[in-house]
Amino acid sequence: MQCYKAPLRDLRFVLHELHGGAGLADLPGLADLTPALIDSILDQAATLCEQVLAPLNASGDAEGCRLENGVVRTPAGFAAAYRAFCDGGWTALGADPRWGGQGLPHSIAKAVEEMICGANLAFGTYPGLSSGACQAIARHAEPGLQARYLPKLVDGTWSGTMCLTEAQCGTDLGLVRTRAVPQPDGSYRISGNKIFISAGEHDLTANIIHLVLARLPDAPPGIKGISLFLVPKFLPDDDGQPGARNGVICTGIEHKMGIRASATCQLAFENATGWLVGAPHKGMAAMFTMMNSERLSVGVQGLGLAEASYQGAVAYARERLQGRALAGARRPDLPADPIIVHPDIRRMLLTMRAYAEGCRALAGWVARRMDEAERAEDPELRQDAADFTALMTPVVKALFADLGFEASNLGVQVYGGHGYIRDHGMEQYVRDARIAMIYEGTNGIQALDLVGRKLPQDTGRLLRSFFHPVSDFIEAHRGEPVHAALLDALGRAFAALQGATAEIAGKGMADPEEAGAAASEYLRLFGLVALGFIWARMALAAAAKLPQAGPDAAFYTAKITTARFYMERILPQAGGLYLAIKSGKAAMMAMEEEAF
Amino acid sequence: MQCYKAPLRDLRFVLHELHGGAGLADLPGLADLTPALIDSILDQAATLCEQVLAPLNASGDAEGCRLENGVVRTPAGFAAAYRAFCDGGWTALGADPRWGGQGLPHSIAKAVEEMICGANLAFGTYPGLSSGACQAIARHAEPGLQARYLPKLVDGTWSGTMCLTEAQCGTDLGLVRTRAVPQPDGSYRISGNKIFISAGEHDLTANIIHLVLARLPDAPPGIKGISLFLVPKFLPDDDGQPGARNGVICTGIEHKMGIRASATCQLAFENATGWLVGAPHKGMAAMFTMMNSERLSVGVQGLGLAEASYQGAVAYARERLQGRALAGARRPDLPADPIIVHPDIRRMLLTMRAYAEGCRALAGWVARRMDEAERAEDPELRQDAADFTALMTPVVKALFADLGFEASNLGVQVYGGHGYIRDHGMEQYVRDARIAMIYEGTNGIQALDLVGRKLPQDTGRLLRSFFHPVSDFIEAHRGEPVHAALLDALGRAFAALQGATAEIAGKGMADPEEAGAAASEYLRLFGLVALGFIWARMALAAAAKLPQAGPDAAFYTAKITTARFYMERILPQAGGLYLAIKSGKAAMMAMEEEAF
Repeated sequence: MQCYKAPLRDLRFVLHELHGGAGLADLPGLADLTPALIDSILDQAATLCEQVLAPLNASGDAEGCRLENGVVRTPAGFAAAYRAFCDGGWTALGADPRWGGQGLPHSIAKAVEEMICGANLAFGTYPGLSSGACQAIARHAEPGLQARYLPKLVDGTWSGTMCLTEAQCGTDLGLVRTRAVPQPDGSYRISGNKIFISAGEHDLTANIIHLVLARLPDAPPGIKGISLFLVPKFLPDDDGQPGARNGVICTGIEHKMGIRASATCQLAFENATGWLVGAPHKGMAAMFTMMNSERLSVGVQGLGLAEASYQGAVAYARERLQGRALAGARRPDLPADPIIVHPDIRRMLLTMRAYAEGCRALAGWVARRMDEAERAEDPELRQDAADFTALMTPVVKALFADLGFEASNLGVQVYGGHGYIRDHGMEQYVRDARIAMIYEGTNGIQALDLVGRKLPQDTGRLLRSFFHPVSDFIEAHRGEPVHAALLDALGRAFAALQGATAEIAGKGMADPEEAGAAASEYLRLFGLVALGFIWARMALAAAAKLPQAGPDAAFYTAKITTARFYMERILPQAGGLYLAIKSGKAAMMAMEEEAF
Repeated sequence: MQCYKAPLRDLRFVLHELHGGAGLADLPGLADLTPALIDSILDQAATLCEQVLAPLNASGDAEGCRLENGVVRTPAGFAAAYRAFCDGGWTALGADPRWGGQGLPHSIAKAVEEMICGANLAFGTYPGLSSGACQAIARHAEPGLQARYLPKLVDGTWSGTMCLTEAQCGTDLGLVRTRAVPQPDGSYRISGNKIFISAGEHDLTANIIHLVLARLPDAPPGIKGISLFLVPKFLPDDDGQPGARNGVICTGIEHKMGIRASATCQLAFENATGWLVGAPHKGMAAMFTMMNSERLSVGVQGLGLAEASYQGAVAYARERLQGRALAGARRPDLPADPIIVHPDIRRMLLTMRAYAEGCRALAGWVARRMDEAERAEDPELRQDAADFTALMTPVVKALFADLGFEASNLGVQVYGGHGYIRDHGMEQYVRDARIAMIYEGTNGIQALDLVGRKLPQDTGRLLRSFFHPVSDFIEAHRGEPVHAALLDALGRAFAALQGATAEIAGKGMADPEEAGAAASEYLRLFGLVALGFIWARMALAAAAKLPQAGPDAAFYTAKITTARFYMERILPQAGGLYLAIKSGKAAMMAMEEEAF
């Protein structure tokens, strides 16, 4: 039985103690956002996630979605949960107040997202997609479209999708074939077939607003000839109510490894009426403006599942009696000791914990900087924050997805055979977590984005937004004996990252295949160092609080212990990654294609 | 669509070129086993696996097993496939000729097992369990039981199970509660409930012979009070035909993450008639005599799935057109290049290949030594071979299971979204592979076996059976410039392994928790070095053949390139593992139980 508890104490630590929640209120437009208000929002989200969403997670997976005569039925309870979600205002959380949104910053929205994903990832895909569609419309659509669609998307009456992928193109959207033909009235007729459309069809909302990538008749070939269109399932009538059925139908749904309660649809557009969003042929740019937020959200999915799986594993490790502690029976009154006494079980639990808490803190940092990039008054601060966000986006997306998957696998392993069967819900986390490594750009694509785009951009300016804080931190705390081991470990890993960066900058500029060959290991190395940095900061923050912590002492002590575990047990992987990167492309490019 | 091809060329390389197939025939009783005969056996196994078993893999997963009124229905086609399997003599492959077996060595049996697992892992569990039961009966049961049961188990008319696990005990079999009460006629009445019994009930055979761990009334508590019993589903009548129904019923089957066509049963024994196998209270010893072979078989499951997933990924990487090569279009005639041109795709494919071929060669080596341990005339050679087999058993089981899972995940990743849906069968490999890390002793238990039992045994004598060949090899080839990089990499990793061994020997003897804390990383390090050694040997063997290879040149060149990839890209992980091991238990044992 899954039993999710929102990690409120740790979220508060990240928001208030690590990244300074009060500072958030200093940003323009956020003056009212006191720590008490933030806590109240988090508490309400926790209640919804624990009591409404989490109880539907396993049943939603078992039941899955069904396609019946073109209509997708979501699992039992999802429609009611979605209404509760809307009624609570959660669809409006981060949206612009102009359209009925609450205008809350990413720092809060991502924290809430983590809870949603931990409680019920499949459910979260429905409002998640809507939120992305909202952002694209809010930034690029003309005012008439905004007024007509945004209020209903923001309050959750309608939902949204992103229709990018087609059978012949996923990563390479330049191959999109869907066509858009302009009409005399300014609308367009859209025809083509899309696949893998999350929430493409379902029974949760009265209308579904598709954002569709398609080509205009005069489009140049490839990626520069893609435009973005808004295509509603029902054309709104003059009152804004869903009217005539538009020419888009669901022709199939996918049978997937996981997130089975999320409807992944094949959609056929046949002369569907749509409207251009943004400039002609600039559809990719319109999609990419919201990519940072979307990719961070996918990373947060990995984080949410790491936390959920950790909780399940700890509960089992405490109650499962099996064998005796290596140093002698710990509970001679019982037939065996609980398995939490075993070092190898603790290794797995601490790895999961180090991932979950490390990713949470790192997500909090990136979200905070995203807020600064959008809201700060100082243009230099804004630029640096935007640089940092752009740099960290692929790292967070790919790293968190990987670690979420690794953590949920460890969760299964703690349960042994009981993890492999459906009953405890642990194997579902693995199946659900697997998708995050794939969608919103595969992790390999994230790695290429990091080395091919973010690294060289403006001669390394983006990179400095991360490297400078790290080297400043190491410098500032040099010679503090109490933190020496921590800082040494971080320093060694950071040196490996600097070395790898120089290696790629040197080789990769001359030969893009060298950068490509290094990409995945480099992203992993980057991510491990970023987690190492945030763990060092957390350990220092916890150590500073500990003397006056009172009943919170256990929390801060655990933080310091987990930091140590991360530094000693996980961060040392940095050296091997650096060696792999240095070896270059030769071995992988030498292989003849036929020889594989 | 899954499309499995047995890796015959590489199996021949391992059997004939790397470990010397002719030498196998030098072992007593194997004089007839010429390379030509071996090849013919492999060819026939390949045909069966490709044409009969592989086509049922995806459909078996989709359909799963059903329990109807106490009877388990296997998926469509399984019964016919099982008959073909028996008719081909494959259940008898490794069995003693005394009971109708073909008496073939482990070297051949494990090669055939790899193909079965690659084609249809779930199917393979049925004959796999029978084979284990056969071995236990052949070694420990009294002659009357052997004569009554073995011929029918060997020819596949009946099948067997291993009934160990109960709800309250998996790893810790000392907690077994099933009871056996002696009867005046020498039989026993068995009562108790077992779970997770693979092939515990099914419709493939006329009878099922359960080997059951249970306690006699006078049993001492714990692991030293466990006895082994033979309990048939139907009691054979005087003609040896299935007669009266015995008191064992299937009360449920598990809904699992994978191997869904393998029936995992809950069995209730109610005054079931059984017979003692081996001495009273020595059931664990009877089970463990076949453990080396069983655990190697589980490792081979990981290998089989790594190969199957690799084949699927290569096929897709060749045909999927997406993006352009980083160094410029490779196929300007096509709308995009096949993704196999991208370094990151090649990284994934070569990782999978390095795992599959490395594990195959290592499995071949261990199987060969297992044959020597059982058959060689020279007692010193036998002892050394037995030492090596005992040492490598936990390494092979856990490492191959881990790598099989990692490889099948990479296979999904190569497919992107198309890997996450059921259609291509790639996600099934992941779900199927996951079990190998759990059953026959979790990977954590394997690691404890390695550091806690195998390492200290006879003051490190077992260890020398592996360390000596490695250091001899490095010494023998020192100063050969053509292999310098390879040997350097191996030498560095081997030094890390030696250092880690000394570390554990030092700390772990005084404090078993230190050994436990190091166990999993040590096993991984050990496994990576073992693969590094076998890859170095393969590279040298291939390099020696290359000048006269003719049309086989591509095979040997690919072998050398993959060896280089392994040494440059994977083996460098050894350093980080050594550092983690050196850090000791402190971080993971310091955490208070309540603080998790």
